[in-house]
Amino acid sequence: MRIAFIGLGNMGAPMARNLIKAGHQLNLFDLNKAVLAELGGQISPSPKDAAANSELVITMLPAAAHVRSVYLNEDGVLAGIRAGTPTVDCSTIDPQTARDVSKAAAAKGVDMGDAPVSGGTGGAAAGTLTFMVGASAELFATLKPVLEQMGRNIVHCGEVGTGQIAKICNNLLLGISMVGVSEAMALGNALGIDTKVLAGIINSSTGRCWSSDTYNPWPGIIETAPASRGYTGGFGAELMLKDLGLATEAARQAHQPVILGAVAQQLYQAMSLRGEGGKDFSAIVEGYRKKD
Amino acid sequence: MRIAFIGLGNMGAPMARNLIKAGHQLNLFDLNKAVLAELGGQISPSPKDAAANSELVITMLPAAAHVRSVYLNEDGVLAGIRAGTPTVDCSTIDPQTARDVSKAAAAKGVDMGDAPVSGGTGGAAAGTLTFMVGASAELFATLKPVLEQMGRNIVHCGEVGTGQIAKICNNLLLGISMVGVSEAMALGNALGIDTKVLAGIINSSTGRCWSSDTYNPWPGIIETAPASRGYTGGFGAELMLKDLGLATEAARQAHQPVILGAVAQQLYQAMSLRGEGGKDFSAIVEGYRKKD
Amino acid sequence: MRIAFIGLGNMGAPMARNLIKAGHQLNLFDLNKAVLAELGGQISPSPKDAAANSELVITMLPAAAHVRSVYLNEDGVLAGIRAGTPTVDCSTIDPQTARDVSKAAAAKGVDMGDAPVSGGTGGAAAGTLTFMVGASAELFATLKPVLEQMGRNIVHCGEVGTGQIAKICNNLLLGISMVGVSEAMALGNALGIDTKVLAGIINSSTGRCWSSDTYNPWPGIIETAPASRGYTGGFGAELMLKDLGLATEAARQAHQPVILGAVAQQLYQAMSLRGEGGKDFSAIVEGYRKKD
Amino acid sequence: MRIAFIGLGNMGAPMARNLIKAGHQLNLFDLNKAVLAELGGQISPSPKDAAANSELVITMLPAAAHVRSVYLNEDGVLAGIRAGTPTVDCSTIDPQTARDVSKAAAAKGVDMGDAPVSGGTGGAAAGTLTFMVGASAELFATLKPVLEQMGRNIVHCGEVGTGQIAKICNNLLLGISMVGVSEAMALGNALGIDTKVLAGIINSSTGRCWSSDTYNPWPGIIETAPASRGYTGGFGAELMLKDLGLATEAARQAHQPVILGAVAQQLYQAMSLRGEGGKDFSAIVEGYRKKD
Repeated sequence: MRIAFIGLGNMGAPMARNLIKAGHQLNLFDLNKAVLAELGGQISPSPKDAAANSELVITMLPAAAHVRSVYLNEDGVLAGIRAGTPTVDCSTIDPQTARDVSKAAAAKGVDMGDAPVSGGTGGAAAGTLTFMVGASAELFATLKPVLEQMGRNIVHCGEVGTGQIAKICNNLLLGISMVGVSEAMALGNALGIDTKVLAGIINSSTGRCWSSDTYNPWPGIIETAPASRGYTGGFGAELMLKDLGLATEAARQAHQPVILGAVAQQLYQAMSLRGEGGKDFSAIVEGYRKKD
Repeated sequence: MRIAFIGLGNMGAPMARNLIKAGHQLNLFDLNKAVLAELGGQISPSPKDAAANSELVITMLPAAAHVRSVYLNEDGVLAGIRAGTPTVDCSTIDPQTARDVSKAAAAKGVDMGDAPVSGGTGGAAAGTLTFMVGASAELFATLKPVLEQMGRNIVHCGEVGTGQIAKICNNLLLGISMVGVSEAMALGNALGIDTKVLAGIINSSTGRCWSSDTYNPWPGIIETAPASRGYTGGFGAELMLKDLGLATEAARQAHQPVILGAVAQQLYQAMSLRGEGGKDFSAIVEGYRKKD
Repeated sequence: MRIAFIGLGNMGAPMARNLIKAGHQLNLFDLNKAVLAELGGQISPSPKDAAANSELVITMLPAAAHVRSVYLNEDGVLAGIRAGTPTVDCSTIDPQTARDVSKAAAAKGVDMGDAPVSGGTGGAAAGTLTFMVGASAELFATLKPVLEQMGRNIVHCGEVGTGQIAKICNNLLLGISMVGVSEAMALGNALGIDTKVLAGIINSSTGRCWSSDTYNPWPGIIETAPASRGYTGGFGAELMLKDLGLATEAARQAHQPVILGAVAQQLYQAMSLRGEGGKDFSAIVEGYRKKD
Repeated sequence: MRIAFIGLGNMGAPMARNLIKAGHQLNLFDLNKAVLAELGGQISPSPKDAAANSELVITMLPAAAHVRSVYLNEDGVLAGIRAGTPTVDCSTIDPQTARDVSKAAAAKGVDMGDAPVSGGTGGAAAGTLTFMVGASAELFATLKPVLEQMGRNIVHCGEVGTGQIAKICNNLLLGISMVGVSEAMALGNALGIDTKVLAGIINSSTGRCWSSDTYNPWPGIIETAPASRGYTGGFGAELMLKDLGLATEAARQAHQPVILGAVAQQLYQAMSLRGEGGKDFSAIVEGYRKKD
C-alpha cells in the first residue's frame, strides 16, 4: 500500500520503519530532513504532496497546533488528498481539535479518525503499541490491519475524538495513581514498615494498581521499573505534564471538575520547576523523601 | 482454647461467632449487654475479668481512646491478664497508640500485637477477612491459626504497629484511587465516550486499579459493585473518612506530606457534610455528576 | 474625537455611553444590532469600517478568539486602520494573545495596548472602572485621558500584555482568598464562635483581606456584600472561573505551578456543576455549610 | 498582685518580665531551672505550689498535652489552687482541650479562660501582644487589666474555647493567603510583569491582604518583611504548620471540610521536609521559584 506518513520524530520514525518492514511504500514528510534521509522512503516536499497519491494518510505530530497546520494549511494534507482516502492522526491532542480537523476532512469527502498511542518509544520500535482509535466502524475496519503492523492492541473507542478521550482519561488516572502510590510508600517508610512488605500488601489488596504492582516508584521494589534505574527511560514527567494539561483543559471546556487531577498536574509542574522534568514521571516520589 | 473477646460490635460479634463455631470457649465483654446475651458465651463484668483466666486476648474496638481505656484502666485487660498470655488488638487505630499500649503490656510480661482487618462486615461473617499483623515472629506464629478461623489472608507486616501502618497506607491509596477513577470516568462521560468502553480501556492499561476493575464507582460497569445498587452496602464513606484521618494524622506526626491524601480526605468530608456519608465511599463520584 | 468602539455587551455598552456623554463621536460595531440602535452612534458594517476613519480604536470582547478575529480577519480592525492610530483592547484574555495581536498591529504601524478592567457592570455604568494598562509610555499617555472618562484608576503596568498579567494575578489571589475566608468563617461557625466576632478579629489581624473586610461571604457580616442579599449581583462565579482558567493556562504555558489556584478553580467548577455558577462567586461558602 | 506564671519559654519569659516590671509578685514554675534563676521571682517546686497562694494563675505552654498535665496532674494547678482564683491559659492549643480543662477547673470552683496570643516573641518582649480571650464576661473583666500589661489588643471572643477558635481560624486563613500571594507574585514574575508594580496593583485592588501589603513574601517588596532579610525572624514555618495542624484537626472533629487549608498545611509540610521549616513561613514562595 502507498501510505503518506507525516511526522517522523521519536515516535513517528520507528512506527514508519515498521510499515516499511511490512512492505508498504511510504511518502514521508517532516521538517527535519536528516531523519527522512535515514529512513529511506519517498521524501515529499509538503504534506499536500505526501497525501496526493496515497491510499492511506497517517500523521504523528507533537501538538494540536501542528495537526491543524499539517491538515489545514494551503500546502496541507486536505489540499492534496483524494476524496475517499482513509486518514488517521496518531498524535496525542485535545478531543476538540481531533473533531474539528476531522470535520474539515469530511467536507472534502475524507473519513479521518484519531488513534493516539501508549507504549512509548520502546513500544513504537518493537511494534507493540496500543492504539486507542476514534473512528467510524468502517474506517476502523480499514485501519486495523495497518495499525496491527505497528502495535499489539488496537482498541475501538467510538466515533472520532474518543481515542483522545480514552487516552487523556486513562492518563489522568495514571498521573493521580502514581502520586497516590508515592504518598503511600513514602508514608509507610516514614512510619517504619519495610517498603517491600508494604508493596506486597498493597498489591494483594484494595490499593492495587499498575503504578504499584508494575511501575512502583520506590527504588528496589520492581526490578524492571525506572525507579530501580535512577528514573531513566520510561515515561518522562514532561509528557505526563502535557497529558494532564490536555485533561484539565478538556475538563474546563466541558465544565467538568477534576480536583485531584488538577493538583497532580501542579505537582508534576513543581517537579519540573525543580529541574526534574526530564526524569521518569515516577520520580514524583522524590518530593516526598528527605534528601540524604 | 479459652479466649477473651472484648468489643462485640458490627465487626466483633461475627468474628466471635466464628471462634465459637470453631470450638473455642469465649469470655465476652462489651458495654452493649444485648449483643452479649445473644452470642451466648461467658459474660465477663469487665475487661480485667475477661482477661483473667484466658489463654488469648482479642480486642476489636471503635477507636484509639477505647483501646487505651480497655487495656490501661483500673479494671482493664492489663490489670487482670497473666504474664505470658498472647494478646492482639484488631481495632483500626493510629500506629503510635498501638505501640504505646503494646509497650505497657510488655511491662506486664505480655506480648501484644496489632492486627487490623479488611473485608468489612461481610468478610467478618463469612470468615474471609484479611488480617494485617504487626507482631514478633513468635507471637505471629501463635496468633496465625486462631486468626485463620476468622479470616483468609493472615499477613505478617513486621513488628507491632506495622499492621496499622499497612492498613492506613493501603487505605490512603484506596481513598485517592477512588477519587481518581471518579474523575476519569466522569470526565470521559462528559466528553462523550461510552463509560463501559472507557472502563475496559483503563482496566487493560496503565490506569488499571482495584477501584476501577473491581469496584468501579460508575453505575452499571461492575454488576457486583455498590455503584450498581445505589451505593448501599460496601465500605461506608464515614469509615474511609476515619482511615484517611488516621493516615493524615500519622503523617503529621511523622513530618511527612501527603498532599493528594489530604485533599481526598477533605472531599469525603465535604460529601459527608452534604449528608451522603452513610453511602458507600464510591458515591464520591456523585459530586462529579450533574444532578438530573 | 472619533473613536471606534467594537464590542457592546454588558460592559462595552455602558463604557461607550460614557464616551458619548463626554462628547466623542463613536463608530460602533457589534454582532447584536439591537444594542447598536439603542446606543445611537454611527453604526459600522464591520470592524474594518469602524476602524477606517477613527482617531482611536477601543475593543471590549468576551474572549481571546473574538479578539483575534476582530483584529486579524479580512474585514477586521487591522485591515482598515490607518498607521499611527492608537488602539487598546479592554477584553480580559490571556497575555500571549494580547502580545500576538499587538505584534500584528505593530506590523501595520499601529501601537496597540491591553487594558482589562475591574469594577463590573456597576463600575462601567458609573464610570468608576479600574483599567490595568499594558502599553508603551507614549501610548499610555495618549490613552489615559480617554480611559479616565470611563474609569477612576488608570494604572500603567508595563509593556503590552502586562495589563492582562496584572488582572489574572490579582484575580488568582482573589479566587483563593475568597475560598480561604469561606473555610475560616465556616470552621469558626462549626466550632461555635460568633461569626461577627470572628470577622472582626480577622479584619484587625493577619488574616485581613478584601474578601473578609469588604466582601465577606458569610451572610450578615457586611451589609453591602452580595452575601447579605442572597449572592445576587456582584462578580459571578462563572466570571471567576473564566479568570482562574486564564491564570492556570498562562501558568501552564510559563511552566509555573499554581497549586492553590488550581484547586480553587476546580472548586468553583464544582460549584458551577451544582448549578450555582450564576451566583456571586462568594457563594462558594455554601459548599462549606450544612443545608438546612 | 501575686500571680502564678507557669511556662517560661520563648514567649512566657518575656511576658512574665513585663508583669514583674508592672510591680506584680510572681510564683514561677518551669522545668527549665536556668530561666527561672535569671527571671528572679519566687521559684515554686510544682504547678500545685505555684498556684497555692496566688491571686491569679497564668500558663503559657507548648501544646495541649502540657496543658493537661500542668492542670490535671497530682501536683498540678487544680490540686493547689483556691476556689475562686481567676485562671487563664495563654497556650495555643485545640479548643476541645481548652474546654475540657476549663470544665475540670469549674468543678473546683475555678473560672478558667483561654487567651492565645499573636505577635510573636517580639510582641511578647515589647508588651504589644494581641490576646484573643475566651472567658465569661466577669472573668474577662478581671483578666483585662493584667493582660494589658503584656499586650496591646485584648479581644473578647466569647465563652471559653473561643480564643483558640479565633486564633486557629485566623491562622488558617493566613496560611492560605500567604500561599496565594506566593503563587500570584511568582506567576506574575514568570509572565514578565515587574513584581513591585504587581504588588502595588494587588494592594489597591481585590487581592489586597496582610500577606501582600505588610508581609509580602517576594524579596524587596516590603523592606521590613522577613522576605527582605533572607526569611529570618518573623513567624517560623514550623509554627504555621502547628497552627494549621490544630485547624485541620479541629475541623475533622467538627466534621467540617477545609480544602485549601489542608493543601496549605501539606505544602508547609513539604517545605519542612526540604529542610526549610526553620525559615519564616513566607519562604513558602521559594517552592514557586526556579533555583538560580
